[in-house]
Amino acid sequence: MAQIARAFVGPVIHSLSPSELEILPCALLVVSSEGVISSFLKSTDPQQTRDTLASLNFPPGLITIHNLERGQFLIPGFVDTHNHAPQWAQRGLGQGMHILDWLDAITFPNEARFRDPAYARRIYADCVDGFLRQGITTASYYGSVHGEATRILADLCLAKGQRALVGKCNMTRNSPDYYLDASVEDSLQVTRACIAHIRSRDPEGALIRPILTPRFAISCDDAALQGLGDIARGDPLLPMQTHFNEAEQEMQATAELFPQFTSEADLYEHFGLLNERSILAHCCYMSEYEMSRIKALNCGVAHCPISNMTVGGGFMAAPIRDFMRRGIKVGLGTDSGGGFSSSILDAIRQAMIASHAREATSEGRDTGLSVHEVFYLATLGGAQVCSLADKVGNFEVGKEFDAVLVGTQGTERGIMTLVEEEDSLKTVFEKFIMTGDDRNITQVFVRGRVVKGG
Amino acid sequence: MAQIARAFVGPVIHSLSPSELEILPCALLVVSSEGVISSFLKSTDPQQTRDTLASLNFPPGLITIHNLERGQFLIPGFVDTHNHAPQWAQRGLGQGMHILDWLDAITFPNEARFRDPAYARRIYADCVDGFLRQGITTASYYGSVHGEATRILADLCLAKGQRALVGKCNMTRNSPDYYLDASVEDSLQVTRACIAHIRSRDPEGALIRPILTPRFAISCDDAALQGLGDIARGDPLLPMQTHFNEAEQEMQATAELFPQFTSEADLYEHFGLLNERSILAHCCYMSEYEMSRIKALNCGVAHCPISNMTVGGGFMAAPIRDFMRRGIKVGLGTDSGGGFSSSILDAIRQAMIASHAREATSEGRDTGLSVHEVFYLATLGGAQVCSLADKVGNFEVGKEFDAVLVGTQGTERGIMTLVEEEDSLKTVFEKFIMTGDDRNITQVFVRGRVVKGG
Repeated sequence: MAQIARAFVGPVIHSLSPSELEILPCALLVVSSEGVISSFLKSTDPQQTRDTLASLNFPPGLITIHNLERGQFLIPGFVDTHNHAPQWAQRGLGQGMHILDWLDAITFPNEARFRDPAYARRIYADCVDGFLRQGITTASYYGSVHGEATRILADLCLAKGQRALVGKCNMTRNSPDYYLDASVEDSLQVTRACIAHIRSRDPEGALIRPILTPRFAISCDDAALQGLGDIARGDPLLPMQTHFNEAEQEMQATAELFPQFTSEADLYEHFGLLNERSILAHCCYMSEYEMSRIKALNCGVAHCPISNMTVGGGFMAAPIRDFMRRGIKVGLGTDSGGGFSSSILDAIRQAMIASHAREATSEGRDTGLSVHEVFYLATLGGAQVCSLADKVGNFEVGKEFDAVLVGTQGTERGIMTLVEEEDSLKTVFEKFIMTGDDRNITQVFVRGRVVKGG
Repeated sequence: MAQIARAFVGPVIHSLSPSELEILPCALLVVSSEGVISSFLKSTDPQQTRDTLASLNFPPGLITIHNLERGQFLIPGFVDTHNHAPQWAQRGLGQGMHILDWLDAITFPNEARFRDPAYARRIYADCVDGFLRQGITTASYYGSVHGEATRILADLCLAKGQRALVGKCNMTRNSPDYYLDASVEDSLQVTRACIAHIRSRDPEGALIRPILTPRFAISCDDAALQGLGDIARGDPLLPMQTHFNEAEQEMQATAELFPQFTSEADLYEHFGLLNERSILAHCCYMSEYEMSRIKALNCGVAHCPISNMTVGGGFMAAPIRDFMRRGIKVGLGTDSGGGFSSSILDAIRQAMIASHAREATSEGRDTGLSVHEVFYLATLGGAQVCSLADKVGNFEVGKEFDAVLVGTQGTERGIMTLVEEEDSLKTVFEKFIMTGDDRNITQVFVRGRVVKGG
């Protein structure tokens, strides 16, 4: 990676934990030519920052100094823990339908189109560009069932510089004939080939990594789940993602298919699919028992508030405060296209709204989430869920530099709330989080590489 | 109004009623030089449309022909039935606070700044531009308590071409000393002066009209409410807006201040403030009795789903399906800045989400709203609430041309879902409603005048 080192001088904001948001008006953040954060001066004194920069005595030509302009600040890149890449061109359709009906009417016909590699290349290129443009530096993608399309998606993430987990979606039953794996054996074989392909392209997993992706138990035979569990057991680096206790209609169908299990936790654990690298999307309905299981197994939750309140069978606000109280890992997902929005900022806002709904129905026990807490979920929380917190999520020295440069003035402002002269950095940050959009995402970096905004 | 007549040839979409959305792929819509819709051919045959256009035989130079480009369509301008202009620069702040605390901590200090006319001029200019840019052709604005600032707001709406109801906000008690009317008499006097000013600027009420704006009963003495009721009784054209059963904290405080009334409906009716021109914001908590009173009095409801779920004391989804079933007029409000978003598209989406929440808590009785129904609320429904349905809200011949030209291709696309070759007009419309933003608002017209997009 032949890059130049960079030093950023100006306001920096990131999370240290769910309750600790660090707001630094005049920091100095140095990124090595390998894209690693090599030093981070958390100064509050502009003169000290300038003096330190001068004393570092960088050889000329070997570093770019970024003096942030008025109204700009740096935040970590956003992590989208649940994203259906092949639904990119169907976002917003089928609102209000129940989950299984929505799959049949809207989603399966659409995802089936990815059998055509040319179509996959066109839509996935637009998809990866679209998410990078919105500051999503890491995404955990569900692909379609198709091996070739899934490899194309992984290749595009690598070429465009997005950090991604990419999984071929397993579906061996209960789906229309036109959109189904040919057989269990074929499903597993294509999965193995995708894993091998992704690892051949990026052997260190520096940017792209494979992930097991059984759509959900409804669409996978026992033998398919067993086979995926076998792959997982033999591969201690491989993560897994699936849909978990998303909607009543889905849970009921699962219970009918698997009468031997009394919970989805037992079901997926039985097949060897639950561990500290598992990303469980939704988790809207959780018994005390299931809470304790996913905590004990250290699974992560992908909270997708937008789809939980629109598509999927009504309205459900997952118990995020309760997860956080128990120390269960939680991140945010756009769930694009079940979620109509591809913006993680929209997911942040809807996560606050969902938490207010939860506060109301829990008689105040599960208090609403603050702006700072949902920001944590969208960055460091998401990195933990994706087993990437050693690499990204905040600006700890030694992590890789995945970041968003936010602009709030002039043409960068878009439709964001007007920033006033006297606003504190905290106020500007809150205005951005609550009212900004991709126009405020001035520049995006992944591993120190510019992936948006030249 | 020295304008040129216009003929639009291409796709047009508008509501005839809550259940009737008219989707016309090749219409011909002619707008007179006075900005009035003079004819509307609802053809489905492109050749018939072209033939009709030719047969109209317009004298050259006296009309502009707009042949809509690929991916473009016309919809009525949006109506924002509840909007606090002086909160424009505070959007997104104080999320999750209870209503009275939020007023004290965030809103009153901010609104107090409008005592300075220069500040008012700067912020209100940005505000009116910001809403026009988002396709809000009509807004019902609360001003601050200040007479001069409120007159500035009205003048700016007139100059920039936004249709608006503009009201000086009445607050005679229970507010900090620094942000209060000097006295009841002064409050009424400034109100009368604002009404007179607005009518002097626009004697026909062609674009701007005054509206009585008691903030809510908590902040108005009996004498102030009585005085405003007297003004209303003597002025059969004057509308009124206030906050109504918004939040538990607010309702409790009102009940304590007015023990003689058992409901806010009785309270405002007693003071002569409820009639067919009344705009009641929120209406989250409604007894059977209050439902029947506002129906009998033909008041309109300004539904503000975003603020109802964030600021205001938790989470409440107003019973919109129930209002519609009873034939009570309902429109949408951004409630900017109690609502963090200034986008009516966001309000549309949140209204769907709120309706899903309501469906869940009403055991399915109040079914969720469809995309078509919330679009109706944001256009024709809002026009009815603002007593402007004789003039705007859809493209009926004889109405004035308030419209948005939506673009979905190329640079106009923004972050909207990709439109595919084979998408029906209905599909493109739904993609825009669920995922578009102001970048798709290519051109905006009020009374036939271009107010955005040259």
